Amino acid sequence: MIKLHYFPSTASMAPHIVLEETGIPFELEKIDREGGELNSVAYRKLNPNGLIPVLEDGNLVLYETAAICLHLADTHPAAGLIPALGTTERAQCYKWLSWLSTTLQQTLIVYFYPERWATQADAVIQIQAHAARKVRLLLEQIDTQLASHQGPWLMGDCYGLPDIYAMMLCRWTRNIEGSKAKDIPRINDWLQRVLERPAVRRVFEREGLPQPWV
Amino acid sequence: MIKLHYFPSTASMAPHIVLEETGIPFELEKIDREGGELNSVAYRKLNPNGLIPVLEDGNLVLYETAAICLHLADTHPAAGLIPALGTTERAQCYKWLSWLSTTLQQTLIVYFYPERWATQADAVIQIQAHAARKVRLLLEQIDTQLASHQGPWLMGDCYGLPDIYAMMLCRWTRNIEGSKAKDIPRINDWLQRVLERPAVRRVFEREGLPQPWV
Repeated sequence: MIKLHYFPSTASMAPHIVLEETGIPFELEKIDREGGELNSVAYRKLNPNGLIPVLEDGNLVLYETAAICLHLADTHPAAGLIPALGTTERAQCYKWLSWLSTTLQQTLIVYFYPERWATQADAVIQIQAHAARKVRLLLEQIDTQLASHQGPWLMGDCYGLPDIYAMMLCRWTRNIEGSKAKDIPRINDWLQRVLERPAVRRVFEREGLPQPWV
Repeated sequence: MIKLHYFPSTASMAPHIVLEETGIPFELEKIDREGGELNSVAYRKLNPNGLIPVLEDGNLVLYETAAICLHLADTHPAAGLIPALGTTERAQCYKWLSWLSTTLQQTLIVYFYPERWATQADAVIQIQAHAARKVRLLLEQIDTQLASHQGPWLMGDCYGLPDIYAMMLCRWTRNIEGSKAKDIPRINDWLQRVLERPAVRRVFEREGLPQPWV
């Protein structure tokens, strides 16, 4: 059976939602994050970066959140989470997943872990402030995208991987003063639509996350 | 005709190589980087991030380097640059492209532009030093991958997108003291193999890049 190594409210949420959307049976394996499991020899064999999530699917051991989402969407086409191969819609889906994971997610990670980039306290403070400002600017690109069409979802009429990934990252901004996704009305409306999906609700409930969810 | 907006020796190199590998006709449009084109209204319409590259393919305007590579590989399957949909090999290809673009590339961008994350000079110096050390650790993951199989390429027997993307990023390290990819023997051997490909040589020549290439 497919197994997702996860921890509540982390980057494992996107693949967790993708699994719920496909409707296939899967197992969750909660990582002992406080107990140091991410640095254990066994976990580093699964992901040498020591990061969440990891997916096990038969003999396949896969890390990188966007890769896991793409793999699950490709192997469960009936869920309709990714456009057909070779289409412009699929190219745009790749673009959003890439931008979300390389740009918005990495900026959020700098915000949450600024000490990874400097040792002195005042440098760490500067880095975090720069990251918070950048998050606000990046959210405007999501807002512009939502304003560019009439559809309910990020790419227009079809719900898919970009909605799932972007909602996960938008909720990471919920306590960043001045850079909260939910404070942008069009983004908030779209977030509420994503949260109404039964598969998404099941994930929040199974991960034991308190309201408000974004 | 397909058009790639590019600048020599930047992130446009990977899609440039992919285009050469496919053998299809394409146009190159050199960006006036020094003249401020990346901040122009016209370019920001193509890519709101003001980054290189952008691909135009009919009505499709696409940014994000990894997305452009995936789209070109999908739409030109005869080039054999990406494994078949739904396979574990394709999942691993997604993983490498995602890791390269989210992790190694973003760390290199912090190294080259540390002033994006702080204002004071001593903070900027700390950030760059942290990034250089992190690059060295990340290169070890590429070395471990190459050591994990007998094949000549990053993923084993088949040359593909991860080789192209990883070579591009490895050459960005060529002047980072203590963190040069070419100083790791197994990586250097693989880099030389990639550089021997005719399509790769044509790209270096067309971009007017002086030796040594890595």
